[in-house]
Amino acid sequence: MEGRPVRDPAIVGVGMTAFVDEAAASLSELLEEAATRALSDAAIDATDLDLVVVGNMAAEAFVGRSGLANGLTASLGATGARADRVENTSATGASAFLRGVEAFHAGSVDNVLVVGGEKMSAVDRERSTSVVGSIVHEEERHHGVTLPSFAGVAADAYLREHGAPRTALSSVAVKNHENATANDYAQFQSSVTAAEVESSPLIADPLRLFDCCPTSDGAAAVVLAPEGSVQVTGVAGATGTHAVAERQSVLRVESVSRAGTRATSHAGVTPEDVDVACLHDAFTVLELLELEELGFYPPGTAWEAALRGETGLDGELPVNPGGGLKARGHPLGATGVAQVVELVWQLRGEASGRQVADAETAIAVNVGGFGNNSICSVLTT
Amino acid sequence: MEGRPVRDPAIVGVGMTAFVDEAAASLSELLEEAATRALSDAAIDATDLDLVVVGNMAAEAFVGRSGLANGLTASLGATGARADRVENTSATGASAFLRGVEAFHAGSVDNVLVVGGEKMSAVDRERSTSVVGSIVHEEERHHGVTLPSFAGVAADAYLREHGAPRTALSSVAVKNHENATANDYAQFQSSVTAAEVESSPLIADPLRLFDCCPTSDGAAAVVLAPEGSVQVTGVAGATGTHAVAERQSVLRVESVSRAGTRATSHAGVTPEDVDVACLHDAFTVLELLELEELGFYPPGTAWEAALRGETGLDGELPVNPGGGLKARGHPLGATGVAQVVELVWQLRGEASGRQVADAETAIAVNVGGFGNNSICSVLTT
Repeated sequence: MEGRPVRDPAIVGVGMTAFVDEAAASLSELLEEAATRALSDAAIDATDLDLVVVGNMAAEAFVGRSGLANGLTASLGATGARADRVENTSATGASAFLRGVEAFHAGSVDNVLVVGGEKMSAVDRERSTSVVGSIVHEEERHHGVTLPSFAGVAADAYLREHGAPRTALSSVAVKNHENATANDYAQFQSSVTAAEVESSPLIADPLRLFDCCPTSDGAAAVVLAPEGSVQVTGVAGATGTHAVAERQSVLRVESVSRAGTRATSHAGVTPEDVDVACLHDAFTVLELLELEELGFYPPGTAWEAALRGETGLDGELPVNPGGGLKARGHPLGATGVAQVVELVWQLRGEASGRQVADAETAIAVNVGGFGNNSICSVLTT
Repeated sequence: MEGRPVRDPAIVGVGMTAFVDEAAASLSELLEEAATRALSDAAIDATDLDLVVVGNMAAEAFVGRSGLANGLTASLGATGARADRVENTSATGASAFLRGVEAFHAGSVDNVLVVGGEKMSAVDRERSTSVVGSIVHEEERHHGVTLPSFAGVAADAYLREHGAPRTALSSVAVKNHENATANDYAQFQSSVTAAEVESSPLIADPLRLFDCCPTSDGAAAVVLAPEGSVQVTGVAGATGTHAVAERQSVLRVESVSRAGTRATSHAGVTPEDVDVACLHDAFTVLELLELEELGFYPPGTAWEAALRGETGLDGELPVNPGGGLKARGHPLGATGVAQVVELVWQLRGEASGRQVADAETAIAVNVGGFGNNSICSVLTT
């Protein structure tokens, strides 16, 4: 037993590939591209890395590969690093980030590379749906339940119980698409109107196609080191019930509030301190539920804030300035890392065209499955 | 920045399922069974867990599942735990263990459950071979190279360069099978003779079927806590070249020596201190190479020690008392955890029928791929 300080790491480099419907590059190439950009941004050589964490949900199913960490350390020349891969369904990216931060807290590393990526286009849509669906609780899955169907039930309950209009959901999609028009890395760099959202194909009533994130290819990376302009002041994970039927209410995503409380407590910040947020808007209703779970708005009221424009780029709490999962895209293992990349750009004042004014404290939430496993990260300048 | 002590965790509970050719239980059931046994052994309730780490290599490919950590926390009722899954090819189990230990070093947890498991029998042999083969470097794989073929090249070079007889390899299989006859959890609880090894079907000259580990189903678990009779005094990972062709010699597994040096240095032990070892004998030749990489024997001499019986149960350095991958079996994600389980039984004096006398310091090595990613763990009483 020896005394030593606990060090919160800094983020000294970020990078990502464009998120697209179908990338020409292989998954390994996507991971390497994002990693190389983050290392270049950090001005750190791969040979100086102590740890490489790869976040990937299902390369075995999508591209028939295991052992991505070995391939990446080799192609980067990260000869001094230990390496492995983290998987936590759709919260994989943030789980990899948490793991990198925790290695820092353990005092075992000085330079860490976290890379999240996925290539979902390598299989057809039916297979891709099956892979994503495999994360639903087995019994619920056997009854034909899918993630969109959970979201549809939650959205329906949200509108009815809180007396919210349909356009409250649409406003989330409209905002995130608008934000993405200024993000060269986004999959959909096009705006949509509420009318377009509401006339898009029905997926799970009341949710329509434009309420749902796409499937995507892409990768994102961050480099952690002892000193830098952006500090990782809190990262925490938490689980909730796996079976959604076991929850007291379909409108609660308790893993988000648990992870949020832990992370903000460690960071010593309150919701009032937060200047910008990247939330897990896999479905529009989730952005509203997470705002409430994190304590930004009382239960049942986030929709009013959304309609008032408070979560817009010029609002009190800009949410998903990079377009979110909805419009930037959702390459599963990449998303949690891409959220951090976007927040770093915001905190550095480098988010040209979508920059949030005076951003000093930022929060990200990455959610696994339908809310049974969430990671919350707090970054500060 | 605040001062606090770095705590090496203790292992307070262990458990595993039988390793078998084809389990009736599902992968989730195997993980739950091992976990429940370890928690029971630890007398710790699942609700007291802070972190659940699942080690699994390829559930997406073998059983079409992602998100094992969510299912396991739910079935165990580990409502307070955060959770995710670690993958590092055949070193997955030890990587999950390392991750659990590191969370301890980070000071973020008090009770941690690490569970490794795999169900390889859910697919046919051809598919299983393809999944395992996916971890070979892409270019080498494209030339038809497999893990057994690397091992065959290494075994051939070992015998020729060091003037060792074929029976040196066979002696590893004979010993490990003999050890497994006293292990109720082992897949092969039967002894073999050198003549049987040497007349078994040729796999990759000079390696024969009985030089190679089987494919297996099974799971193993450990519980970490602040205080207990077995201390985790060192765990470290390291990578080497992914492409075997890039190595200076096919007889070097540098990731093993790097990880070994880091782990023993942290633990403050030398090879002379080690009383018992669990090495990664996926192929007989690997046990010899790892003994040399870890500094137990000078390069090119481990075979002589093996023939002298030094690595037998009554020898100076008993290796793989539980039967190793060769005879206990090798359910990929389970193996690294099962090595720790066996060593805990040895250190507690509970390894009835295969107990190493006066074991106080133990070492495990779990190797990913053909040596490109290794984890070394040191346990002491």
